[in-house]
Amino acid sequence: MGRKSLKSEHIPKATIGRLAVYIQVLERLKSEGTDVISSENLAQACSVNSSQIRKDLAYFGEFGVRGVGYYVQELITSIKQSLGVDRIWNCCIVGVGNLGRALLRHGEFKSKGFNIKVAFDCDPYKIGEIVEGLEVICTRKTRNLVSEQKLEIGIITTPPERAQRAANYLVEAGIKGIINYAPSRIDVPDHIPLEYVDFIHHFYALAFHINLGRAAE
Amino acid sequence: MGRKSLKSEHIPKATIGRLAVYIQVLERLKSEGTDVISSENLAQACSVNSSQIRKDLAYFGEFGVRGVGYYVQELITSIKQSLGVDRIWNCCIVGVGNLGRALLRHGEFKSKGFNIKVAFDCDPYKIGEIVEGLEVICTRKTRNLVSEQKLEIGIITTPPERAQRAANYLVEAGIKGIINYAPSRIDVPDHIPLEYVDFIHHFYALAFHINLGRAAE
Repeated sequence: MGRKSLKSEHIPKATIGRLAVYIQVLERLKSEGTDVISSENLAQACSVNSSQIRKDLAYFGEFGVRGVGYYVQELITSIKQSLGVDRIWNCCIVGVGNLGRALLRHGEFKSKGFNIKVAFDCDPYKIGEIVEGLEVICTRKTRNLVSEQKLEIGIITTPPERAQRAANYLVEAGIKGIINYAPSRIDVPDHIPLEYVDFIHHFYALAFHINLGRAAE
Repeated sequence: MGRKSLKSEHIPKATIGRLAVYIQVLERLKSEGTDVISSENLAQACSVNSSQIRKDLAYFGEFGVRGVGYYVQELITSIKQSLGVDRIWNCCIVGVGNLGRALLRHGEFKSKGFNIKVAFDCDPYKIGEIVEGLEVICTRKTRNLVSEQKLEIGIITTPPERAQRAANYLVEAGIKGIINYAPSRIDVPDHIPLEYVDFIHHFYALAFHINLGRAAE
């Protein structure tokens, strides 16, 4: 399927972050049976203002129908096609502790196209164990497996002090991008996209809302 | 400590969400030794534009120093004091599976003032087990424990099909707010703030960045 031409190849980083949230919210709306949504309601569901959403979506052409709103499925398809992410992504996880196991058991990733194919750990007691149908593989084999299995995304779920080493293995093996769940900063070359998953801002947001006496959702 | 007067008690929900991110980014900057930051650099670190940051922070008075930027510690202190969150929050976790255990072992919560005091589970094989120094308690005791231990925030880490029941227990017990890590929507009364933690938008954002051939961080 051809990639639709974008109004600009220079979509700001902040827009990309919001598009990821829009897609997630739109997919939830779809699963709840919503076919059409106004930009105001979509904005509210995404916790941004409606002029921001219209501006962000304008990178992908003219979408909204005046007086109607956005067609949910059409918008999902268009954003994904435009950005070229309407396909399966091969992922691996590094660190089969509690968080790693929780992610391996999480049904949502595969259904959204993120297929965790390999699980690495450096603990000899874990290597060879079968977790959710995957055999835990020694982290030293990262280089071979990344190329053999065409792995693109590396998910780091090690303890914080091992996150940098995990990132080094992944980068050396030619991984295309990294998601770091470990609570520590890591260095990777500039050409490797890196996302941090951090839980604490949800706690702050909730505390703010409790204190202000108003619903967060 | 007195609560500083806010320019407006009607801070928009989207601003609250961003303030939580600003606090998190500012605390990271502080831990890395940054004392002063320009609104442009802070905006970049938070993935928003600098006029948005200036507008959001204006709810708390005049902060930035022209030609200098923001003093990191002063800004953290002021936002937290203004919103009244510079204190310890008593939390409980419902669901001691892999994700629950990962959160109990996560050092960051306590250091940021979110103290997980009680761990609930409905599995008789888990009840009584000691996890990270906490005895797992039967979920049916939620009502007693929430009032006895002055629990304010409930963290749901059950399987998706049990999240609603966990929320019901927490709400009936008088919890003040809920963070839901289970991948399912839940209903709570309007006066109970609710935050969803969802991992998938990080995957979308990373995929977008990989496809656009540019660094996400």
